[in-house]
Amino acid sequence: MSQPLTLHPDRLLGTDPGVRSIARELYDAVARLPIVSPHGHTDPLWFAADESFADPTSLLVTPDHYLLRMMYSQGVPMEALGVEPLAGGEVAKPRDAWRTFAAHFHLFRGTPSGIWLDHVLAEVFGVGVRLTADTADEVYDTIADCLAQPAFRPRALLDRFGIEVLATTDSPLSDLRHHRTLAGSPLAGRVRPTFRPDSVVDPQVSSYAANLARLGELTGRDTTRWEGYLAALRDRRQAMIALGATSTDHGHPTARTADLPPSRCQALLDRALAGTINANEADELRGQMLTEMALMSIDDGLVMQIHPGARRNHNRWMYETFGRDKGGDVPAPITYVDALSPLLDRVGNHPGLRIVLFTLDESTYTRELAPLAGHYPSLFLGPPWWFLDSVEGILRHRRAVIETAGFANLTGFIDDTRAFMSIPARHDVARRVDCRFLAELVADHRLTLDDAHELAIDLAGEASRRVFNLHPASE
Amino acid sequence: MSQPLTLHPDRLLGTDPGVRSIARELYDAVARLPIVSPHGHTDPLWFAADESFADPTSLLVTPDHYLLRMMYSQGVPMEALGVEPLAGGEVAKPRDAWRTFAAHFHLFRGTPSGIWLDHVLAEVFGVGVRLTADTADEVYDTIADCLAQPAFRPRALLDRFGIEVLATTDSPLSDLRHHRTLAGSPLAGRVRPTFRPDSVVDPQVSSYAANLARLGELTGRDTTRWEGYLAALRDRRQAMIALGATSTDHGHPTARTADLPPSRCQALLDRALAGTINANEADELRGQMLTEMALMSIDDGLVMQIHPGARRNHNRWMYETFGRDKGGDVPAPITYVDALSPLLDRVGNHPGLRIVLFTLDESTYTRELAPLAGHYPSLFLGPPWWFLDSVEGILRHRRAVIETAGFANLTGFIDDTRAFMSIPARHDVARRVDCRFLAELVADHRLTLDDAHELAIDLAGEASRRVFNLHPASE
Amino acid sequence: MSQPLTLHPDRLLGTDPGVRSIARELYDAVARLPIVSPHGHTDPLWFAADESFADPTSLLVTPDHYLLRMMYSQGVPMEALGVEPLAGGEVAKPRDAWRTFAAHFHLFRGTPSGIWLDHVLAEVFGVGVRLTADTADEVYDTIADCLAQPAFRPRALLDRFGIEVLATTDSPLSDLRHHRTLAGSPLAGRVRPTFRPDSVVDPQVSSYAANLARLGELTGRDTTRWEGYLAALRDRRQAMIALGATSTDHGHPTARTADLPPSRCQALLDRALAGTINANEADELRGQMLTEMALMSIDDGLVMQIHPGARRNHNRWMYETFGRDKGGDVPAPITYVDALSPLLDRVGNHPGLRIVLFTLDESTYTRELAPLAGHYPSLFLGPPWWFLDSVEGILRHRRAVIETAGFANLTGFIDDTRAFMSIPARHDVARRVDCRFLAELVADHRLTLDDAHELAIDLAGEASRRVFNLHPASE
Repeated sequence: MSQPLTLHPDRLLGTDPGVRSIARELYDAVARLPIVSPHGHTDPLWFAADESFADPTSLLVTPDHYLLRMMYSQGVPMEALGVEPLAGGEVAKPRDAWRTFAAHFHLFRGTPSGIWLDHVLAEVFGVGVRLTADTADEVYDTIADCLAQPAFRPRALLDRFGIEVLATTDSPLSDLRHHRTLAGSPLAGRVRPTFRPDSVVDPQVSSYAANLARLGELTGRDTTRWEGYLAALRDRRQAMIALGATSTDHGHPTARTADLPPSRCQALLDRALAGTINANEADELRGQMLTEMALMSIDDGLVMQIHPGARRNHNRWMYETFGRDKGGDVPAPITYVDALSPLLDRVGNHPGLRIVLFTLDESTYTRELAPLAGHYPSLFLGPPWWFLDSVEGILRHRRAVIETAGFANLTGFIDDTRAFMSIPARHDVARRVDCRFLAELVADHRLTLDDAHELAIDLAGEASRRVFNLHPASE
Repeated sequence: MSQPLTLHPDRLLGTDPGVRSIARELYDAVARLPIVSPHGHTDPLWFAADESFADPTSLLVTPDHYLLRMMYSQGVPMEALGVEPLAGGEVAKPRDAWRTFAAHFHLFRGTPSGIWLDHVLAEVFGVGVRLTADTADEVYDTIADCLAQPAFRPRALLDRFGIEVLATTDSPLSDLRHHRTLAGSPLAGRVRPTFRPDSVVDPQVSSYAANLARLGELTGRDTTRWEGYLAALRDRRQAMIALGATSTDHGHPTARTADLPPSRCQALLDRALAGTINANEADELRGQMLTEMALMSIDDGLVMQIHPGARRNHNRWMYETFGRDKGGDVPAPITYVDALSPLLDRVGNHPGLRIVLFTLDESTYTRELAPLAGHYPSLFLGPPWWFLDSVEGILRHRRAVIETAGFANLTGFIDDTRAFMSIPARHDVARRVDCRFLAELVADHRLTLDDAHELAIDLAGEASRRVFNLHPASE
Repeated sequence: MSQPLTLHPDRLLGTDPGVRSIARELYDAVARLPIVSPHGHTDPLWFAADESFADPTSLLVTPDHYLLRMMYSQGVPMEALGVEPLAGGEVAKPRDAWRTFAAHFHLFRGTPSGIWLDHVLAEVFGVGVRLTADTADEVYDTIADCLAQPAFRPRALLDRFGIEVLATTDSPLSDLRHHRTLAGSPLAGRVRPTFRPDSVVDPQVSSYAANLARLGELTGRDTTRWEGYLAALRDRRQAMIALGATSTDHGHPTARTADLPPSRCQALLDRALAGTINANEADELRGQMLTEMALMSIDDGLVMQIHPGARRNHNRWMYETFGRDKGGDVPAPITYVDALSPLLDRVGNHPGLRIVLFTLDESTYTRELAPLAGHYPSLFLGPPWWFLDSVEGILRHRRAVIETAGFANLTGFIDDTRAFMSIPARHDVARRVDCRFLAELVADHRLTLDDAHELAIDLAGEASRRVFNLHPASE
């Protein structure tokens, strides 16, 4: 009764035969290029320890909030997918959770998760049947057998996946032990940290005061004083730079920035540490910290990434019961143009600054982001992010921003994922869709085929090397 | 001089030959399926009394605000279309108004109204010529002749249109006499009421206090007290459930919800009844009522529909001169993510709750609605609504929401119309465009043909049966 | 090493062969129609004096903020493009600036500027090679040779470009000398002024008080008194009408309108003249002025254009260093539906009023603009503007607005440019994309081929003649 799982070689290359043949030619030139991954959420421990992954479910299902959210939306309890409540409790065993997942895999028809999973099953694990309730055990066993082999350990997969460079996401409070291990390994320069300071710049993080105290201990700075606090952050940036970091990342609720006098900064810090800061002041302080980060970037060369606009933990019950990153985050309206003004007025024209902007609100593509990136030398646009990292999402993004921002103000594709197995799938989807987009321009006589070849290669990785300073020579 | 009116069998199935042939195959499988109409504005009197419709103009033109708005925008006076001022006055006779309509029918080129009208003329009335000033009388006479025949009475048309179930829109203050007649007729379970309480939950309705007094009389409850008021609403929901209702509908200006303590509720009710409530308090009270309705839905099983975001009667002069629903409503920006939080924090994870969300603001598709529906078990997305119920509108909707919300969190098509004759046309357009959309996914190798068949059938009606509890067995 | 520059005859007509053949047929019928340009920023001096343009760079590069912004975004200094700082300083000589431009022309791949420039080079100047660093001098010399010839003087180009009518943009404070010259020339009625009163209606313009004093001198009115101020504006409108103006243009930050009592108007004017008006009052006064302009339009027949929503001079450093219109403007979110209510409540149903609305925020297309224009007799929609005047931008606009607003509530294409040489290119792009859009409707059986022909001709110019009262007979 099982159906074969096959990936059509022309998938995602468009439906128009003329466009598809051009897209196919472009894709053939980029399909096997190395993967450049300047931002993601893989665990450096995996690559430092290089141990086998435990089982199919804990590898592919339980940590994937894209999968959890969709199944939960159709009434599947989190426990049935192996997610343990914070307060503890029974959860499905890996094989049972996998069966539940398989029985609901039809929910992912037409979604990026469905495309990625099919690719992972077929290409990474050699699964030959479509995943359904009937084939759940067969597929589980195939994957489990693979995972027991050395060829499926993290470092071997890095090679097999053709990953040239992969950045993780790291707290300034991290001891970076795994990255230190990596720095002394053959992976030096290939797995790199990224400075993500949300826990020490967002006063609404519950452990903010404790975090700043810890930051002070790590650096020997007085983090209760504005200058000491900034110095401590500079120290931790240097620690990550020494281990290969080329960028920072900022996950703020809004894109608000500020440019405040030092006395106001100290006052906000005092209130934040005392726990008396209100919501607007907290936003102001976060905004000031974006400007401080930009100033530090001018000094130390780290590229800034700003990922704003998610209402984290929108589902309060989910957050309180199961914790964060379980699929209960939802985007909210956002605007950049006034929000970024304080930062841009201060340093937006500085030749040494690079800021990569992301959004979850497509209404900002042509209204704000493309005009901003198409003017300010410091601004670049990241690829479609999260809910927008999809076939249609990528097409909409390219069609919307390139006419105003051009190609040169874009980075390449960024997978932004903790799902290590899906990295090749995600880059493959992006490359296919970009080739389709470029092929449409060629077929419509808006672009020459030679230019399309060059731009396909650029979007497939070269643009990320350039914007994020990840040229192999710089390792 | 007249041109033939023909409907091309492949219309709306896309322009790419490869896509179209798949779309055609899918469409052939759904074209003649029964119509499920879970929400609309037809008059239950039509089906209860089953009398002939009066004339072409009062049936097809004068009550259709889509037609009125476009002609008015090009300078056609309302009176010339048979719309009588509230203060009384001369209006065009039906045949004259029809001539005016015919002379302006070119305004509807490229619009859904044009597509629907052509379908109504050709398929329902057998008109063989395109409607123009020259053919106005010929077409009028053809329709008028039809309307005089028994085959064109409402119940006969219900059969001919293949309408399996049709929900009207009913006030809690309605005596439901027509639905009672229907309940004792062969149409029992086929024409159903829908609980639309705007007139008794919106304190900015002019007759709010009188309406609550009437609600009290109908139920024997003290509607000046919060608990009595809620009990009265529960009573009226039960009255509609007894007559077949499976859903409620809420036409609020915003998506704001609230979760207030009883004392605050009583205070707001007091001010609303006294006429001293301000605009913000009115919005707060409406928001509280959405949460109350959700709580009642958990108890009695009615599915909630929320249709927010229209500035009703934006054209004040039009409203004051001719009354409501004359084409002078305009959408406004809306946001759901924070607005729905109070309701969702209270009951958003309840397995017994279903809320179908609609929007007139496409910027919310990928930013808010698809992420919300793709996570909360209680949330579903209705199809494109009103101004967005169009060929391009449906394509944009599918391309935007399905990658994040999947197919399973959608309802089927909902016609939401008072234009009874156009119901088959509207469902036909939706089915064609959905088949085209699915065919694109198949041709791009994102979906198998088997899955596309299943999903086409689902979107054509099964999804609405499932979400709205309208399975024939449940009648 | 140089590559030939050729313009494919089927460019921008779509990639689907079936659509393209219809589009080609439609395009052939409109390609050579006269150009109607109801709004732009060419300099009336050019046509009055009819002198040769100086050199390729000062003609094509230095004044084009589309080009400046993109090159600046990639680190090219403004001085290298021939833009002189306000404080003075060295700038590149024309040939050197051209070389810099040529070396960066690849930045415009996939952008409208790239398409327009290629058209200008190939069609206007007969350049046969693609512009690159290698061909910079060759192309420069070709253009420079052309500019020295009488056939490339402004009036000759008006004829060669087939420009039937061209409106400039003029201040009420202008002495209109060039338009007076034109009125006495063979160009009478062909180059017309447009009344653009921003400098005398926006109290946040730095020289506002001086401007009103000058307005008083020009008209002999007391512009410190509300009635005198309005009378002065009426006088200047009449002066422009006498020289052929048929429209006004308003570049406000928002779409806010107001309908205030005279005492409030006088109070706002007093504060504006005293320099004590705050930001909100300034917006209120601008909003009142829009309503006053509408009232004057009813009297004198000038069509209003509203171009709102740009944050002018968003790059403060750029503005302070180089002045305005250097590429540092960025759109911001906007809403029309409430903002326009005061004006529409006052005069929105008046048969003698025409207001053409523009936007830089595509989220307003289906949400607000199409519903408004598809209802109010006074409202029309301009074509995609500025950042949105692009191949994809035009396609999105047509697909979004026509289903609700119809074709009849649109104007034709408006180039809105100071780049005189690009006017044929811009109209050609718009005609091609409109023909592609119409061809898609025909191929999808949503429109007959005859109707598509009629609508293609309408969009190519007839609609602008009609909406802007620019019929040749009215000259």
